[in-house]
Amino acid sequence: MADMKIHGSMISTATFRVLACLYEKEVHDFQFVNVDMAKGEHKKEPYLSLNPFGQLPAFEQGDLKLFESRAITKHLAHVYATKGNPLSCHGELLPMLMQWMEVEEQQFESPSSKLVFELCIKPMLGMPIDEAAVEGNTAKLAKVLDVYESRLGQSKYMACDWFTLVDMHHLPNIEYLMATKVKTLFDSRPRVSAWVKDIRARPAWAKVLAMKTNQA
Amino acid sequence: MADMKIHGSMISTATFRVLACLYEKEVHDFQFVNVDMAKGEHKKEPYLSLNPFGQLPAFEQGDLKLFESRAITKHLAHVYATKGNPLSCHGELLPMLMQWMEVEEQQFESPSSKLVFELCIKPMLGMPIDEAAVEGNTAKLAKVLDVYESRLGQSKYMACDWFTLVDMHHLPNIEYLMATKVKTLFDSRPRVSAWVKDIRARPAWAKVLAMKTNQA
Repeated sequence: MADMKIHGSMISTATFRVLACLYEKEVHDFQFVNVDMAKGEHKKEPYLSLNPFGQLPAFEQGDLKLFESRAITKHLAHVYATKGNPLSCHGELLPMLMQWMEVEEQQFESPSSKLVFELCIKPMLGMPIDEAAVEGNTAKLAKVLDVYESRLGQSKYMACDWFTLVDMHHLPNIEYLMATKVKTLFDSRPRVSAWVKDIRARPAWAKVLAMKTNQA
Repeated sequence: MADMKIHGSMISTATFRVLACLYEKEVHDFQFVNVDMAKGEHKKEPYLSLNPFGQLPAFEQGDLKLFESRAITKHLAHVYATKGNPLSCHGELLPMLMQWMEVEEQQFESPSSKLVFELCIKPMLGMPIDEAAVEGNTAKLAKVLDVYESRLGQSKYMACDWFTLVDMHHLPNIEYLMATKVKTLFDSRPRVSAWVKDIRARPAWAKVLAMKTNQA
């Protein structure tokens, strides 16, 4: 099999999503290619030929070029179905995996990413915080977490009783938000709080965070 | 198999997505349960027990309850894999299906839905249009369609050379936007324009539009 390359950045949450998947799958034979966002390399060629939207990360293996972090994790889960953590469920549980995967994308992603941008990225760049955006997205995220609190009373993880792609897709934004005032939204809901603690403690996630520390 | 119910509304784009899938799959033995959004039925019980986010549509068949339109279409494509239009692709093409499915969700959905809200829903409700939101989302959608114009030079449809879930997921928002000034964004790009004409002409889509007309 041709060499696998992950083009990404250690300040990109979507890059962390793909790295977490590789470590869960116990795939270590990949090359990490740093794309310098400060220099705008993600908005120029040759990167744009990997992802025409100019967003990180991108996956490359031989002739296969893929972008969109969740498409990459689904591809990895499919190709390495029998290696490392399955990250999936089947049969009667499959509709639940599909449903909660969509919930992460359609309900959790927008308010959580906007809060990461306002509360983590903007302060790093010295940009002023939009307090109205923080307030609005905090309210939206609270409603999503109310649904999660109820869901986690039905199964140990979001899709079923084991850790899947769904839980993993949440990790990067949660990790950032746990260092902000929005942490209370997670802490104040007992089942959400236990779930956050559990998924952040995964060895694969520790490897991603170590990689982040080493690159910083 | 237990009776299938689709709880939805004929003013909900996500409801059209699921109905289009059922007709593509030549599944006609379902019951459509109208949820009266004007009365706020989607924000009250018993509907909230079908979808805790209070959004349309919801799918019900025996003990299986599902929400999020794209989870429902993926479930239908899986369960009825050998019936009607496959809506899918396999093998080497599978990563492209995954990637472009994510592009629709992560790149197309947000600007197109916001434009549908501003240019179609707000006028229906007598609400004032936010011109800055129209301008910003028009610019975002234009960039997405530039990528689509290039992509459609590589394959006839978004994921591969035949119609899949990816193309189908775009239909409801495109249908609404073709009746607005944003139509020019699609018309001015030759390959996008031909693709829009092709996917809007599908017999399954005509059935959805007929159902909409009959319910209005």
